[in-house]
Amino acid sequence: MNIINLDHISGTPLTPEVQTAMVDAIHKNYGNPSSQHQLGDEAAEALQKAREQVSRLINSKMEKEVVFTSGGTESINQAIKGVALAKADKGKHIVTSNIEHNAVLRSLRRLRMLEYQVTSVPVDPYGRVNPKDVADAIQDDTILVTIMHSNNEIGTVQPIEEIGKITRERKVLFHSDAVCSVGVVPVDVRKLNVDLLSFAANQYNGPSGVGGLYIRQGTGLWPLLDGGVQENNKRAGTENLIGIIGMGVASELAAREMDRRIEHTRKLKEACIEGLKDRIDDIIINGHPEFSLPNLVSVSIKYIEGEGIVLMLDEQGIAVSTRSACAAGALQASHVLLSIGREFADAQGTLVLSFGAENTESDVDRFLEALKTAVDTLRSMSPLYRKAVGG
Amino acid sequence: MNIINLDHISGTPLTPEVQTAMVDAIHKNYGNPSSQHQLGDEAAEALQKAREQVSRLINSKMEKEVVFTSGGTESINQAIKGVALAKADKGKHIVTSNIEHNAVLRSLRRLRMLEYQVTSVPVDPYGRVNPKDVADAIQDDTILVTIMHSNNEIGTVQPIEEIGKITRERKVLFHSDAVCSVGVVPVDVRKLNVDLLSFAANQYNGPSGVGGLYIRQGTGLWPLLDGGVQENNKRAGTENLIGIIGMGVASELAAREMDRRIEHTRKLKEACIEGLKDRIDDIIINGHPEFSLPNLVSVSIKYIEGEGIVLMLDEQGIAVSTRSACAAGALQASHVLLSIGREFADAQGTLVLSFGAENTESDVDRFLEALKTAVDTLRSMSPLYRKAVGG
Repeated sequence: MNIINLDHISGTPLTPEVQTAMVDAIHKNYGNPSSQHQLGDEAAEALQKAREQVSRLINSKMEKEVVFTSGGTESINQAIKGVALAKADKGKHIVTSNIEHNAVLRSLRRLRMLEYQVTSVPVDPYGRVNPKDVADAIQDDTILVTIMHSNNEIGTVQPIEEIGKITRERKVLFHSDAVCSVGVVPVDVRKLNVDLLSFAANQYNGPSGVGGLYIRQGTGLWPLLDGGVQENNKRAGTENLIGIIGMGVASELAAREMDRRIEHTRKLKEACIEGLKDRIDDIIINGHPEFSLPNLVSVSIKYIEGEGIVLMLDEQGIAVSTRSACAAGALQASHVLLSIGREFADAQGTLVLSFGAENTESDVDRFLEALKTAVDTLRSMSPLYRKAVGG
Repeated sequence: MNIINLDHISGTPLTPEVQTAMVDAIHKNYGNPSSQHQLGDEAAEALQKAREQVSRLINSKMEKEVVFTSGGTESINQAIKGVALAKADKGKHIVTSNIEHNAVLRSLRRLRMLEYQVTSVPVDPYGRVNPKDVADAIQDDTILVTIMHSNNEIGTVQPIEEIGKITRERKVLFHSDAVCSVGVVPVDVRKLNVDLLSFAANQYNGPSGVGGLYIRQGTGLWPLLDGGVQENNKRAGTENLIGIIGMGVASELAAREMDRRIEHTRKLKEACIEGLKDRIDDIIINGHPEFSLPNLVSVSIKYIEGEGIVLMLDEQGIAVSTRSACAAGALQASHVLLSIGREFADAQGTLVLSFGAENTESDVDRFLEALKTAVDTLRSMSPLYRKAVGG
């Protein structure tokens, strides 16, 4: 069965160009970029090329501001814990928002165990942070503000540039988790006024397990990984060169094809939202109508469980998710959906649909049809639904 | 030019089987192992298979004791910092040895900045730790002993099993950096009495940027990477599945071919040592004559600089190293060589030769010939040498 993948937020397929580059790297059998002989030189050149490709994607001032990591989670942990540990003598207060990814939330929870304090600002019903709330939350002992660029469950894009103006004026470091944005929508680290920005190749058709952390020149933070002098002394360990080469090529492609990809997925997104509204009663489309990822739809379907829908669609060969794959093992309701005011039950009935370059309008049609059947089936078994329509 | 690689300690070439498995994984375009649909299921199965392969290589009791990381450096940082942070209320004292890898040394240096105390035990002139010294160094507030399994510069293998008996009796956690040993010589985590053991795929013909950390069941430590629930809640972040699949296959091959590989490289090592002694005066072979890696030779060549030799051999298409690629950017003399009593100048004149399955006796011959020429050339320019032979 040919699977229709509407779960690109969990990871995007490698494009043929990325596959070719990685396969070539495997066959080339590179040495260690830190070695002082020819085998090392070729590896070091390949590493440098990838760093330039990634640097261009986010418009960093120089390549050495890009540090390769093992993925978005490491980048985020490195940024937050690295700043927290380095600046502890200046203060132990951090500002964040209520709808961050678990990598941010749990890094902050960890820091609380080391006596850091966290202020979390609310979001509006569309999931947007008000920059004024961030300004108000900053204290004399605030060492870091960390606000995501776009949300992985509802797609809302935050006013990062405005927040960045505030943090720069107040001389507080600013990190943005841009894992769902980089390679998908334009992200310009200089324009955004960020000091640190996390991203991952698997969000834009590069491999999983490789990510980047933008560290603005002069930003002091402790490395999470101490050891060798790799990555400009900011991240020790022999590099995942095959993955990094894939990330480089994916970055170049993403930059080149971004406009086309945005246009393509936005059309699918619009068709999907229209179709949902036409065919299924009692739904809520989550997220901001304007400031939102072009490739993501979040829909809360009343009187059902999202997990049930995922399983029924899976049987039809359609892959969707209820939320971040990272949280799939956890059983709580989504903190993001509760933060924008969804009821607990509606949060449990939420699907996340995320589109990629290979999706077509007929994929969306097939999904809508299968969803309609699944929802009708599940609702026919739901006492809540019968009570609602009966009453 | 066909390069003769005598620098396997910096990374080993991928074997054809590993290449095939990784290329297949790239073309298969796996989903996210945490996803709840079919795309995720296939990925989760591939991940599980690799975990079993790795688990068998080190003889862990169950697969879930194996956590995949981004390499040896992450494993080591995770083990040391993870225990240190989790056990801080019990104590802040750690025992190590004088000849550990920079990933250990610098992790410990970092912890010193957080008011941990470290006792470092000496080694004998062959680079061996005396287990009694470890026993004497353990205090009431000792929370961790970290001693490497084998040394990356001189190849000496430590009495880990004996040390493990002591730590278990004293109820102190024991970590061993086995990066240069796992996949090269037999390593059995149960026999060794370790609680934590770090290793990396690129030491045994797997890819760089993927490693493993054995965490004995019940061992409490903080994750370095907080976020999703991957890796049995011990290491967040979407997995580097392509690399992990490569590591799995490399592990299976290493287990199967270990005896043959050891026999092959040991012959080359012996031929190399004989040849060095026959052809070049004023050398010292470093490391233990018996308890030593079968694939590594460390030789200090008096009156010359190792870096000069590396460059001259590189021109002849022969790759060797002066020491760990991780330390190549650093300019200090090797702490390992100073610890076993080498003079500063002799430490600077040291070469590390490390053999792999694809090396032949003629590689060793060509190396010895080229080395003889290089040493003669460099010594003829050395005032120190002229003084020594003249006087």
